[in-house]
Amino acid sequence: MSISSFNPPIRTLMGPGPSDVHPRILEAMSRPTIGHLDPLFVSMMEEVKIMLQYAFQTKNELTIPVSAPGSAGMETCFVNLVEPGDKVIVCQNGVFGGRMKENVERIGATAIMIEDEWGKAVDCNKVEDALKANPDAKVLAFVHAETSTGAQSDAKTLCALAHQYDCLTIVDAVTSLGGSELKVDEWEIDAIYSGTQKCLSCTPGISPVSFSERAIEVIKNRNHKVQSWFMDLNLVMGYWGGSAKRAYHHTAPVNALYSFHEALVMLQDEGLENAWQRHTQNHLALRAGLEAMGLSFVVDEADRLPQLNAVTLPAGVDDAEIRGKLLNEFNLEIGAGLGALAGKVWRIGLMGHSSRAENIMLCLSALEAVLGDSIKQGVAVSAAQKVLTA
Amino acid sequence: MSISSFNPPIRTLMGPGPSDVHPRILEAMSRPTIGHLDPLFVSMMEEVKIMLQYAFQTKNELTIPVSAPGSAGMETCFVNLVEPGDKVIVCQNGVFGGRMKENVERIGATAIMIEDEWGKAVDCNKVEDALKANPDAKVLAFVHAETSTGAQSDAKTLCALAHQYDCLTIVDAVTSLGGSELKVDEWEIDAIYSGTQKCLSCTPGISPVSFSERAIEVIKNRNHKVQSWFMDLNLVMGYWGGSAKRAYHHTAPVNALYSFHEALVMLQDEGLENAWQRHTQNHLALRAGLEAMGLSFVVDEADRLPQLNAVTLPAGVDDAEIRGKLLNEFNLEIGAGLGALAGKVWRIGLMGHSSRAENIMLCLSALEAVLGDSIKQGVAVSAAQKVLTA
Repeated sequence: MSISSFNPPIRTLMGPGPSDVHPRILEAMSRPTIGHLDPLFVSMMEEVKIMLQYAFQTKNELTIPVSAPGSAGMETCFVNLVEPGDKVIVCQNGVFGGRMKENVERIGATAIMIEDEWGKAVDCNKVEDALKANPDAKVLAFVHAETSTGAQSDAKTLCALAHQYDCLTIVDAVTSLGGSELKVDEWEIDAIYSGTQKCLSCTPGISPVSFSERAIEVIKNRNHKVQSWFMDLNLVMGYWGGSAKRAYHHTAPVNALYSFHEALVMLQDEGLENAWQRHTQNHLALRAGLEAMGLSFVVDEADRLPQLNAVTLPAGVDDAEIRGKLLNEFNLEIGAGLGALAGKVWRIGLMGHSSRAENIMLCLSALEAVLGDSIKQGVAVSAAQKVLTA
Repeated sequence: MSISSFNPPIRTLMGPGPSDVHPRILEAMSRPTIGHLDPLFVSMMEEVKIMLQYAFQTKNELTIPVSAPGSAGMETCFVNLVEPGDKVIVCQNGVFGGRMKENVERIGATAIMIEDEWGKAVDCNKVEDALKANPDAKVLAFVHAETSTGAQSDAKTLCALAHQYDCLTIVDAVTSLGGSELKVDEWEIDAIYSGTQKCLSCTPGISPVSFSERAIEVIKNRNHKVQSWFMDLNLVMGYWGGSAKRAYHHTAPVNALYSFHEALVMLQDEGLENAWQRHTQNHLALRAGLEAMGLSFVVDEADRLPQLNAVTLPAGVDDAEIRGKLLNEFNLEIGAGLGALAGKVWRIGLMGHSSRAENIMLCLSALEAVLGDSIKQGVAVSAAQKVLTA
């Protein structure tokens, strides 16, 4: 056996995540490791919490990064708020609603499923009907930004409905945080989880979460211990929480947190509203180019996420072949369809540092090159450029 | 709010982990992020598996890094092998045996506890008595290298006993992997977990695990779904496993895996037996210096881990004050006692890249400087040097 160091190529990442990571954030990751209980590391953790509160637009004290990917952030929300025998209303309009159902059932709780077509927003009327029909439901869970389809749902209205019927809310914001409007306190979200590798443009591996006071009360007064020791917030709070002495729980991913800190500094310096605006503006430019080519969007304009553009494959085109050519000839990654949409759509991400004019130009021109006669030639770039310079 | 980039100091890490990370490994972490389903990333994952098999001395196909810290590696072993109603014999001779108990109980299984004094090895006679008395036990779980005390137990004998009584074994090797003898196949370990931030000298955040064929059969034939979706190996195998098409499960921590790959390349280049030998040799040098000072070890020589040296505080010395001085005056971190040993012992790590002659010299001379008349002056460095040059 003799294996050498791994030297990755330079890709342009325009799939559903990870997105391009800014060199500043990569460099931060390689700063010298210090101890996870070092007073200077603890001060850095406090700064992460403050900047994450800003990103989530919340004053929630329990606003922290979970030391594992978004899937573990999701599970942290469910295993802490839901107990065996509880009833949870789960909205599914893509892959990740289905994962929520799995989480609920593995706790020994019941998931009441509200199904919407993939690519549509969650239907608030159906949700209200379910809330009426299930007065004993404890939690309403839904995906704010469906990474599998590019649809966004009306989180504000859904949360208001949930509270009207005395339900807590669990919200998947993996793809929305930092990319489009998200206001945890104003919308009264009780538990929310996200990822670092989407619109925050950080490396993958940790999951920001936030919990309202109301959620914390529920967690502190559970009847059963949380089934996961690693994810038990009653224990995690001892390490991340407040001004009290830090108690060792697990070893934090020190260098991953350096990079997350740097990503949050960059978001602070750009300004959250400016970041939202940049994502919208670049979406409009990409859309103009894609539509000029003749490609059509999966999601209706009103429900479309600017940062994740799902388009239908042109007739007669081989999914894997085209994505392979983009990767091999142009070092460009776009995303395949997931689940029911596999082979039928592409997901083009414009998230975080990937949301740049140069990426739009590369994507449009590379698609034009590899799709050839399957699409309208010679019009995409100028259509996008018109929007960019408007 | 205006928070700046975080620039950590340069510490020398001689606590119980994280240990010093070699600059090559830090640099690897900052290489450009590529997609977690990129064919080149998948090839790198295969190399990680091969090198990890070497580190664990196993041919187990399911030998992978869990995308979360060692605590999640532990939980992955327990939630996959143990089901509600099962009986698990858990050996406790420090903090981490207690954490195993928590894991067992949160599954709805029963933990039969075998207690040994903290700082002692697990008593094989007591374990055999428990195996005899509990013929329905499914798993024997124990800590190979207790990070809280620095004691190592006889994993080979314990595993042989377990199999004699038809039990599976779960072994905590967080602090032993790469630092002292560990042979998964020869010792017939069924499930093992470790950390990256100890003797492999990598950044913290992921947890190497390995499962025998026998363990995989049990996992594939469970009566209940694994309670954790994130840690369910039936799903994780679809992403990490074999030659079949990779199925998306969660987004891998791409850059953390770059650094882990580099750490494993360095271990391969040094040679596993050479790494074990280096840890032993440096332990002997540190020991000579500490004993010359008049400090005494918590663990009997026969059961002592070379990579983690727990010593009793000299009389009248304030734990936090001394560790604070080492950190502030010399940028040197040593570890405090945990649990029952808090305030009574220090844990001095010589793990991975921290296991170097220059670290021994710094540690001994800094301790001499800050402890003053509490210990014997002027003898430690020469005692250590005699061993290093022997």
